[in-house]
Amino acid sequence: MEKEISQAVIRRMPRYYRYLGELIDAGAERISSNDLSARMNVTASQIRQDLNNFGGFGQQGYGYNVKHLHEEIGKILGLCEMHSIIIIGAGNLGQALANYSDFEKFGFTIAALFDVNPRLKGRKIRGIEIHMLDELEAFTCRYKADIAALTLPKSQADAVANRLVDLGITAIWNFAHVDLDLADQNVIVENVHLSDSLMQLSYNIAKKKNA
Amino acid sequence: MEKEISQAVIRRMPRYYRYLGELIDAGAERISSNDLSARMNVTASQIRQDLNNFGGFGQQGYGYNVKHLHEEIGKILGLCEMHSIIIIGAGNLGQALANYSDFEKFGFTIAALFDVNPRLKGRKIRGIEIHMLDELEAFTCRYKADIAALTLPKSQADAVANRLVDLGITAIWNFAHVDLDLADQNVIVENVHLSDSLMQLSYNIAKKKNA
Repeated sequence: MEKEISQAVIRRMPRYYRYLGELIDAGAERISSNDLSARMNVTASQIRQDLNNFGGFGQQGYGYNVKHLHEEIGKILGLCEMHSIIIIGAGNLGQALANYSDFEKFGFTIAALFDVNPRLKGRKIRGIEIHMLDELEAFTCRYKADIAALTLPKSQADAVANRLVDLGITAIWNFAHVDLDLADQNVIVENVHLSDSLMQLSYNIAKKKNA
Repeated sequence: MEKEISQAVIRRMPRYYRYLGELIDAGAERISSNDLSARMNVTASQIRQDLNNFGGFGQQGYGYNVKHLHEEIGKILGLCEMHSIIIIGAGNLGQALANYSDFEKFGFTIAALFDVNPRLKGRKIRGIEIHMLDELEAFTCRYKADIAALTLPKSQADAVANRLVDLGITAIWNFAHVDLDLADQNVIVENVHLSDSLMQLSYNIAKKKNA
């Protein structure tokens, strides 16, 4: 039904969604693309272009209805469906994700954590249990999770990712410091590189120094 | 000296940098924009456009010299300068960042962590000491850090951010689930929203289902 939309556009959608959520909390009913632009540090024409990919939503002279636009972007982002996440690797980062209760607001439930460290077996993070990694097959057999967050060492990431693909996982949210290459497999991969945003910060520091 | 370069371009630079680093490790000496494009899932014309912002670097019929391009992008990103990070909040996420030894490869040293929990006082993560937050002023007086990572609860983020601005910090790498608004202040802010990449994943799941 729809044309291919670039991932660069999709990457901006969560930001629109967050800002519109804040506007709703602040009691705003409508907003012009200019005001949204000023707030978000994106040009108004970029906003119009981005939203036109999905059919517009704005009205000349009125701007955008905040609640409606928030809902529509939520639908575009697939947030009206519930998603279930398992976290593979219950170290600091895995536990930090499990503690992040905001994910639930967006429809993402964390079902379980997995680790190989026997001392973590049965421990709970915010009520979410840590299982041993060798229970993964049994767990996913009775409990259908669609997203696996990989928060484990680089050296183990590929082996576990392939095991998850065999178990029919839909998507991998990869925090291991390696770009998984599973393009041939029927799985969606989103690699998170924390150092990328640190480098962007570093660029802006250098730019400021040279200004 | 140079024109304003959009943050969207800058956001792609760390990826180029990472991929070129991998190519160097793999022994590659040169690469065409087409090969780089296939590897990075960005169009060849986008790559050429992005790099032309900084003066090009490619040669017709030769492509890019991998090592030279890696170095030049590193310079653009300010990675030839050393950066010193303090982490405010020594919970799971703060400790996960402190454990991330790859940052050092890019010139980012973690100097210390700070927390308000007295049970953490003096503990070390990978040799990096946890200080009490009330020692922040004394510490930054004798030790010059330029980046502060905020890995603390949302409710405390603004107060601590303002305190850091008063201490003359150059940049804030903000993981608290709130967009800091310090635009009037003379500080660089990079907000990290982990849920954004989760929403992008969710979009791709929905798209696949509807395909």
